[in-house]
Amino acid sequence: MKKGVLTIYFFGKKTEIDSKEKEYLRRINFRCKADLIPLSQAGVKDPSAAKKLEAEKLLPKIDDNEYLIVWDERGKSMDSIVFSQFIGKQIEEWGSLVFVIGGAHGVDESIRQRANKLVKASDMIWTRNLFRLMSLEQLYRALEIQGGSNFHKE
Amino acid sequence: MKKGVLTIYFFGKKTEIDSKEKEYLRRINFRCKADLIPLSQAGVKDPSAAKKLEAEKLLPKIDDNEYLIVWDERGKSMDSIVFSQFIGKQIEEWGSLVFVIGGAHGVDESIRQRANKLVKASDMIWTRNLFRLMSLEQLYRALEIQGGSNFHKE
Repeated sequence: MKKGVLTIYFFGKKTEIDSKEKEYLRRINFRCKADLIPLSQAGVKDPSAAKKLEAEKLLPKIDDNEYLIVWDERGKSMDSIVFSQFIGKQIEEWGSLVFVIGGAHGVDESIRQRANKLVKASDMIWTRNLFRLMSLEQLYRALEIQGGSNFHKE
Repeated sequence: MKKGVLTIYFFGKKTEIDSKEKEYLRRINFRCKADLIPLSQAGVKDPSAAKKLEAEKLLPKIDDNEYLIVWDERGKSMDSIVFSQFIGKQIEEWGSLVFVIGGAHGVDESIRQRANKLVKASDMIWTRNLFRLMSLEQLYRALEIQGGSNFHKE
């Protein structure tokens, strides 16, 4: 597998990143260069306005030649094997992948429009902090599967 | 909502339960009496034999008048609202609910046979320890929704 560049954006503070997330990032970095980057949450109560402000912060950071994957409840559900094949393929083709984890109210439509792929992890809703950990575990698992390790068991 | 009794079994050690899980349990206990109980993992390599041994440990602990919910990839996918309504209904009808989180290779067919309901959280696979935390968060969320708090946002 090519050594890709993975950039993961979330809306929140750097101090929210816990030790388990750091450990997954450390392990992911053996296979790809990976960064988990906080973007400040929009400080407005109206969900639509907040999502719009967050999108305006995020979108200028993403280059045209980066493949954007958005974790989104409207996305495609994949099992871990299919997700790993998908990630492997995009790393080969694009080299640089960007992931976005939505804020408290999800993501703005403009982010969905820019996305190359929407991926759904669950029909259930999870707190932002827990979902960040979940997404890192699943990304780590995907890279381990592609790398041929025995971390993933059927 | 009736104050139900929730018993959550997992295959692993008590020392694996982390501070976030303990915090969710503490909060769940405001609404229901809840216990997270470790059962020792079968120390055999063959997945089928391990699952069978684990089932033999688990099943005698469950009374006929307890409603058994198994987290299982073959289960029904529910969103958080549907799951909360389902949990609320079973607490009203049964009072005592038992949850099972499968071991490293999932659950034995005999556990599926005993189950009143199989529930799927995701098409993806998660490590046992992370899934335990996920299931506690989702259970807490379900009880908060049923209790009418504003923890859950659409």
